[in-house]
Amino acid sequence: MAGGGTWNVYLAGEIHSDWRRRIADGVEEAGLPVKLLAPVTDHPASDEVGVEILGPEREGFWKDHKGAGVNAVRTQTMLRQADVVVVRFGDRFRQWNAAFDAGFAAALGKPIVTLHDAELTHALKEIDRAALATAETPEQVVEILRYATVKE
Amino acid sequence: MAGGGTWNVYLAGEIHSDWRRRIADGVEEAGLPVKLLAPVTDHPASDEVGVEILGPEREGFWKDHKGAGVNAVRTQTMLRQADVVVVRFGDRFRQWNAAFDAGFAAALGKPIVTLHDAELTHALKEIDRAALATAETPEQVVEILRYATVKE
Amino acid sequence: MAGGGTWNVYLAGEIHSDWRRRIADGVEEAGLPVKLLAPVTDHPASDEVGVEILGPEREGFWKDHKGAGVNAVRTQTMLRQADVVVVRFGDRFRQWNAAFDAGFAAALGKPIVTLHDAELTHALKEIDRAALATAETPEQVVEILRYATVKE
Amino acid sequence: MAGGGTWNVYLAGEIHSDWRRRIADGVEEAGLPVKLLAPVTDHPASDEVGVEILGPEREGFWKDHKGAGVNAVRTQTMLRQADVVVVRFGDRFRQWNAAFDAGFAAALGKPIVTLHDAELTHALKEIDRAALATAETPEQVVEILRYATVKE
Amino acid sequence: MAGGGTWNVYLAGEIHSDWRRRIADGVEEAGLPVKLLAPVTDHPASDEVGVEILGPEREGFWKDHKGAGVNAVRTQTMLRQADVVVVRFGDRFRQWNAAFDAGFAAALGKPIVTLHDAELTHALKEIDRAALATAETPEQVVEILRYATVKE
Amino acid sequence: MAGGGTWNVYLAGEIHSDWRRRIADGVEEAGLPVKLLAPVTDHPASDEVGVEILGPEREGFWKDHKGAGVNAVRTQTMLRQADVVVVRFGDRFRQWNAAFDAGFAAALGKPIVTLHDAELTHALKEIDRAALATAETPEQVVEILRYATVKE
Amino acid sequence: MAGGGTWNVYLAGEIHSDWRRRIADGVEEAGLPVKLLAPVTDHPASDEVGVEILGPEREGFWKDHKGAGVNAVRTQTMLRQADVVVVRFGDRFRQWNAAFDAGFAAALGKPIVTLHDAELTHALKEIDRAALATAETPEQVVEILRYATVKE
Amino acid sequence: MAGGGTWNVYLAGEIHSDWRRRIADGVEEAGLPVKLLAPVTDHPASDEVGVEILGPEREGFWKDHKGAGVNAVRTQTMLRQADVVVVRFGDRFRQWNAAFDAGFAAALGKPIVTLHDAELTHALKEIDRAALATAETPEQVVEILRYATVKE
Repeated sequence: MAGGGTWNVYLAGEIHSDWRRRIADGVEEAGLPVKLLAPVTDHPASDEVGVEILGPEREGFWKDHKGAGVNAVRTQTMLRQADVVVVRFGDRFRQWNAAFDAGFAAALGKPIVTLHDAELTHALKEIDRAALATAETPEQVVEILRYATVKE
Repeated sequence: MAGGGTWNVYLAGEIHSDWRRRIADGVEEAGLPVKLLAPVTDHPASDEVGVEILGPEREGFWKDHKGAGVNAVRTQTMLRQADVVVVRFGDRFRQWNAAFDAGFAAALGKPIVTLHDAELTHALKEIDRAALATAETPEQVVEILRYATVKE
Repeated sequence: MAGGGTWNVYLAGEIHSDWRRRIADGVEEAGLPVKLLAPVTDHPASDEVGVEILGPEREGFWKDHKGAGVNAVRTQTMLRQADVVVVRFGDRFRQWNAAFDAGFAAALGKPIVTLHDAELTHALKEIDRAALATAETPEQVVEILRYATVKE
Repeated sequence: MAGGGTWNVYLAGEIHSDWRRRIADGVEEAGLPVKLLAPVTDHPASDEVGVEILGPEREGFWKDHKGAGVNAVRTQTMLRQADVVVVRFGDRFRQWNAAFDAGFAAALGKPIVTLHDAELTHALKEIDRAALATAETPEQVVEILRYATVKE
Repeated sequence: MAGGGTWNVYLAGEIHSDWRRRIADGVEEAGLPVKLLAPVTDHPASDEVGVEILGPEREGFWKDHKGAGVNAVRTQTMLRQADVVVVRFGDRFRQWNAAFDAGFAAALGKPIVTLHDAELTHALKEIDRAALATAETPEQVVEILRYATVKE
Repeated sequence: MAGGGTWNVYLAGEIHSDWRRRIADGVEEAGLPVKLLAPVTDHPASDEVGVEILGPEREGFWKDHKGAGVNAVRTQTMLRQADVVVVRFGDRFRQWNAAFDAGFAAALGKPIVTLHDAELTHALKEIDRAALATAETPEQVVEILRYATVKE
Repeated sequence: MAGGGTWNVYLAGEIHSDWRRRIADGVEEAGLPVKLLAPVTDHPASDEVGVEILGPEREGFWKDHKGAGVNAVRTQTMLRQADVVVVRFGDRFRQWNAAFDAGFAAALGKPIVTLHDAELTHALKEIDRAALATAETPEQVVEILRYATVKE
Repeated sequence: MAGGGTWNVYLAGEIHSDWRRRIADGVEEAGLPVKLLAPVTDHPASDEVGVEILGPEREGFWKDHKGAGVNAVRTQTMLRQADVVVVRFGDRFRQWNAAFDAGFAAALGKPIVTLHDAELTHALKEIDRAALATAETPEQVVEILRYATVKE
């Protein structure tokens, strides 16, 4: 009596570690009814996509603007399709887009799970407050998804 | 011409009696196009899930907070996925979470069916008022679902 | 390139003529990707369902209240599931529930098609104004659905 | 500690009796913080407003369509501005617009109070079910507004 | 630069202690730009209001139903008008309506502050989880309101 | 881990060039999980549909009104079903309906991609501003959809 | 009993004729409780505002983009603040932004009044269909506002 | 004809420079109809408010959690009250809460203006893309507000 079909889970944030792969492996091993959504994780491709598809720009600002627009076609759609949003913060880059996605998800009423090391706790307090759970490992996220989707 | 695909019906509230099983049996026997959703009904697992997955807490308040968060990943998602919400009040515990779920469902505009003994009528008057039907037995709930989904 | 999967079309209103059957026949003959939803059209069953399932009432008002609640579990769910709402007004009874359904659908932003004889035009002007089309025959409704769903 | 500023109360429905005046008198006598909103109650003006302002029509249907549009500029705005919606059904005309307004208000989540004679109970059961109270006299409506706005 | 006009703060829940008065006193002493809203706190009046205004009922269920409807005209309007919702749980009665109001407020995205003794922590864990703060005294609530509205 | 099922992409605007076919071809060749939705692109059929199905009109205004209503049953439904909306502006006709669809999509929060020649840039600046990307060729739109739906 | 306070009426569209002034004069003469909102109607200022405030751009596209963004801060806010939206189409320029505003308003459920010459009827049929009234003169708009706000 | 009453403008983000004061001065000098809202900008008070009002915590995570909750009572209310949201990113701290606020505002459909130095352009590209304007000085923000609220 547990489940309600397949859940869409959007994995937002850091693209420089293997956390998405570890969640995907865990979901697959556990056979969870979960479809994982994600932004493009190929960093150069993500940075270049605007000018790559739509033509070159002389100004860095507008090159970024174009690229961010194309990426947002994907990320905003996935955020709206998601039942649950997991947001990962790593130790590199500022990752303001991860925080932006968390705010976007919060205003839409989506359940949020944050994933980060303990040392980021103070800096992330507002976002952790908006989340329903804060994990430190991808495996904990898998356990939360297992509990949420199939636990009797 | 009756139906519109499978309906998601969320069964909120009491976890210490067999009412969900009786509804599930009735739905199955009647062959209704209904998928039943439910919170985790294993009480100890539900109480411990926060610290079990995310690590121990010294304070009872925060242990409960963690556990309630993980449970809410499941219950809020299911409440949003539901076409109809059934809320059961039993005679044990205060079951404030059942009442909370009813309020949450009401504000989302979900049709609500309450299920409780006649002796709780006065205490539950605000919630029964927000419901479209108040039943005393799981079998009545099955009849309502049959009427709603397949009656010509 | 026409379609977007199966459309849910809710057929609200009059239950004493064969208009739903004629639309169903037309949809089937044309092979349209349309699933038709409808309230219970067995008038006595609809009037009695509250007391039939939930127990007798001494007051007519509360008997009606109970029955209307059980029917609303079905109709409100179907109105929310619908992509398009067809509302039929016939020449018998006051059919205030048909008008209520039209208002409910309008506030949800659902496209509305009204179906009634020309003689009801003045009385139905507010509702026809809220509709995107006003038909006089079920066959016209089928043509509108054909145009909306599969016309290239 | 009772009130939250002035409440907008929209008085929908019948325009051929003095019920709005009686509510207005009651509200004024009681000094309630209530602003009453209403459709145009001058029946001929309401019927003619479309062609009066926007030019004549040869077809009755389009004359009504024009008039209903202009009236809807007023009524839809007021329904959205309203905190509470009172819907009156009288014994003349079909008053489908009153039922439409009730459905519109219900889908917007506005509290509804219906006002009609007991003999209309069966015909209005779906709408009374969607209301939070059903009154038979304007004075009862005033009492409900008094209780809602200023009772300690 | 702190404030944004007067805030509406709805005080839901327990009606048998002086907690609303203590918050009102604190707000007044501090001169906060806060308007306090509340349900009717006269328990007998609240229980009798349905039959008092709308006529007697033979069945307790319907008497309660009528009363709860009239009270909901007030409480649902105030919940929607509120910027912040404070929910108080005391040690008497089951107070399911307080929990219902909390769920209703949560689904509307209203910031919630809960107020209760530490001994109720476990029973209220789901509701405290949905709140942004959990206080034990009315004075703490006043401090939160002071911080939220006028602190530079 | 890229996708979230099939995406509905609504192709609004110009009906006098082969841009929809070129996008459809590109989507098919790339095997993208995209279902393309579109208005009726048979211009005469679109102009005549109102009077064709619902009967003749003497006034051009009302003939257009009828036709626009029937078309809106289709277009409004598809706009709501869409995950992404592509809006094409060509060099013939005023195409106000394309701009209307863009505004409708924007208010619903749908990601928008505009498609037009560079010479229309100044005239379309408000709409391009509301879009997440502006393309000049159908092939660029296909690339955006590929990136959004299947790029790892 | 007519009014509900001051109405915000947003005047979208054409900026090269005196239609706004004529509506403003009419509203003032009639003493209507209407506050008129409008985009910046100084065409050069509107075109230059982006680079004027935020710095020059080499590309026309981005100059327009900047300008359209600053204008949208104003127009989107006013569209959301509006109770009623009037959209004027003149005979110069393509005025796609007027059509965009109409679509935006329609999706938000705002009552729309269109204002244009009869010769634009066919080209504007989709937008007129989404409007509740179509006027040819500013004076007709004033009459509609008078009827909507103060007519008894 | 420019304005629509006073606008609420929420100033989110950095609390360690005088940017809010400069905007406030500019707004005052220009006499704009703008009310500025802001989070608590006293950093220690903001960090301590949870434990200060609600009692001490042993764990840093929960101390932060408490504090973030109390701050969110203020910030979420102000974000919902705002007509426009300005988000400032400075060169100190990670300011994930500023990015979170931007995402929250974006999902609510609020017009956003970002304010930061050019060197942060690449890191903030997703958030600048969601904004309607990106400024580098507080004076530019004042000019945008002047244009949006009072420019004829």
